[in-house]
Amino acid sequence: MTHTVVASATKEIIIGFDQPFCVIGERINPTGRKLLAAEMQAGNFDTVKKDALAQVAAGATMLDINAGVTSVDPNATEPGLMVQTLEIVQELVDVPLAIDSSVTAAIEAGLKVAKGRPLVNSVTGEMEKLEAILPLVKKYDVPVVAISNDETGISEDPDVRFEVAKKIVQHAADYGIPAHDIVVDPLVMPIGAMGTAGQQVFTLVRRLREELGVNTTCGLSNISFGLPHRHGINTAFIPMVIASGMTSAIMNPCRPTEMEAVDGANVLMSNDPDCTNWIMKYRDHKPAAAGVASTATEAPAAGGRRRGGRAARQRG
Amino acid sequence: MTHTVVASATKEIIIGFDQPFCVIGERINPTGRKLLAAEMQAGNFDTVKKDALAQVAAGATMLDINAGVTSVDPNATEPGLMVQTLEIVQELVDVPLAIDSSVTAAIEAGLKVAKGRPLVNSVTGEMEKLEAILPLVKKYDVPVVAISNDETGISEDPDVRFEVAKKIVQHAADYGIPAHDIVVDPLVMPIGAMGTAGQQVFTLVRRLREELGVNTTCGLSNISFGLPHRHGINTAFIPMVIASGMTSAIMNPCRPTEMEAVDGANVLMSNDPDCTNWIMKYRDHKPAAAGVASTATEAPAAGGRRRGGRAARQRG
Repeated sequence: MTHTVVASATKEIIIGFDQPFCVIGERINPTGRKLLAAEMQAGNFDTVKKDALAQVAAGATMLDINAGVTSVDPNATEPGLMVQTLEIVQELVDVPLAIDSSVTAAIEAGLKVAKGRPLVNSVTGEMEKLEAILPLVKKYDVPVVAISNDETGISEDPDVRFEVAKKIVQHAADYGIPAHDIVVDPLVMPIGAMGTAGQQVFTLVRRLREELGVNTTCGLSNISFGLPHRHGINTAFIPMVIASGMTSAIMNPCRPTEMEAVDGANVLMSNDPDCTNWIMKYRDHKPAAAGVASTATEAPAAGGRRRGGRAARQRG
Repeated sequence: MTHTVVASATKEIIIGFDQPFCVIGERINPTGRKLLAAEMQAGNFDTVKKDALAQVAAGATMLDINAGVTSVDPNATEPGLMVQTLEIVQELVDVPLAIDSSVTAAIEAGLKVAKGRPLVNSVTGEMEKLEAILPLVKKYDVPVVAISNDETGISEDPDVRFEVAKKIVQHAADYGIPAHDIVVDPLVMPIGAMGTAGQQVFTLVRRLREELGVNTTCGLSNISFGLPHRHGINTAFIPMVIASGMTSAIMNPCRPTEMEAVDGANVLMSNDPDCTNWIMKYRDHKPAAAGVASTATEAPAAGGRRRGGRAARQRG
């Protein structure tokens, strides 16, 4: 059984087919969050801290840490900011972290200060990337996310994406990195732009599991890009990729509908023994009385308040 | 490609791997509904009519019709009541119907009056059942639900259930009934009682599709029997069985969360071309403002009112 071990200073998590789905919190990422980017550049980590606590409270298994605040000379700013952000977050919460950067120097700087066994996010099939990242992965003995694109870009042909993933696993082996330390991202396309995007991922995840024996991950919300009511598509997509064999995803844990889909899928994949987590979490769930209007409050992460959210979702 | 054709007087539906998931409305069934049973016995079909309209308004592809009001001499009461119920429902709505009875005489009486091409629900692997039901299926040229249990009862071993299904398909072939007119129910066990129930179904559905080439169905809500917040489990189970290849289910269409999972899974299986159904149905979906309490009204089926239900479900 393929087990990818990640750890903080105090907590070890196993990513695997026989484990609860690994939810990698995506919120600490300034990409597309101008306010957060400005705050981080100004040395203000209030939002980072708030997002770290909220995601862990919402049930995140790990947190992704991205410090890419600018496209202007990121090599100058990102390594230092990655170190600061990692140190602040690992002081605050005990979950394992993913060091997320396209800047090799930021990944190396992060690896020097991250406690436990962080996940490197990411390497691609591009030779330059492989030669820059894989030695670090080997040196620090950490697992890495392998994104299945290369110099030719992202292929729309899932077989080509499978071959890129296979190439990365083989290159890693040359560096002495075992397949169980490679978490492949098969790349999720928007279903609104490519009607076969869902089936491509289901087939790829199954092949990656059966033929390469690797764990998998994805940027989950890409699937619903451009569609109305994206959370409805995401919430259906999660159980489908889990049933296909996906073992982790980079997603927003502060969405009760998506997290409920993860909890339900864990039960249905026999990864919630005796349904203990489900029963503890939802035993007090109260469906609203039929036909009776009632109030439901917004509840991104606070456990107590989520009951209202669930009751509202469940009404009718 | 396996296509099971069902039809009302005016509407034909195809059940198949390349078709939207077939939602068979389960509500018109007095089993466990004492009030409905009493009404039907008294010749009052108000609830039957209300349930027929509500289920079709909620998006049911077909309706299951069960007239089993009593376990005391059902042979005397059920055939007549089945005929009455079928005639009332097919006058009222245009979706295909399933004739659901354990009483052969009720199925035959139903077949005589049902317009179009109804689905017989059901036959089992019991010899007596096979010899009673299959000739009717052949005579009236209709499809049939095949439940994978036999004289020995329901096996907890999925391989045994597969063999029972295979036996039914072979017996049907002896009667000249093609595999595409057999819709196998692999039997869904409660996950709370059997932790492997989910994976059993996923594996069975895949085998039934790949090895026997048949369409499949199930009593969907069985999976969550005995657990808190059953709709959360059902809503995760739907996309998982659809991703495994299930093509229909007997379920309650008047549950927006479950129907939203069906709609999302249709998009993700490439069975909602250009996401047209999803966009038309959810384009006006408005997430509620974060942190602002608001009211959502119960909305079993009314399209207009369901928006509130969706907004409420999505909140947070």
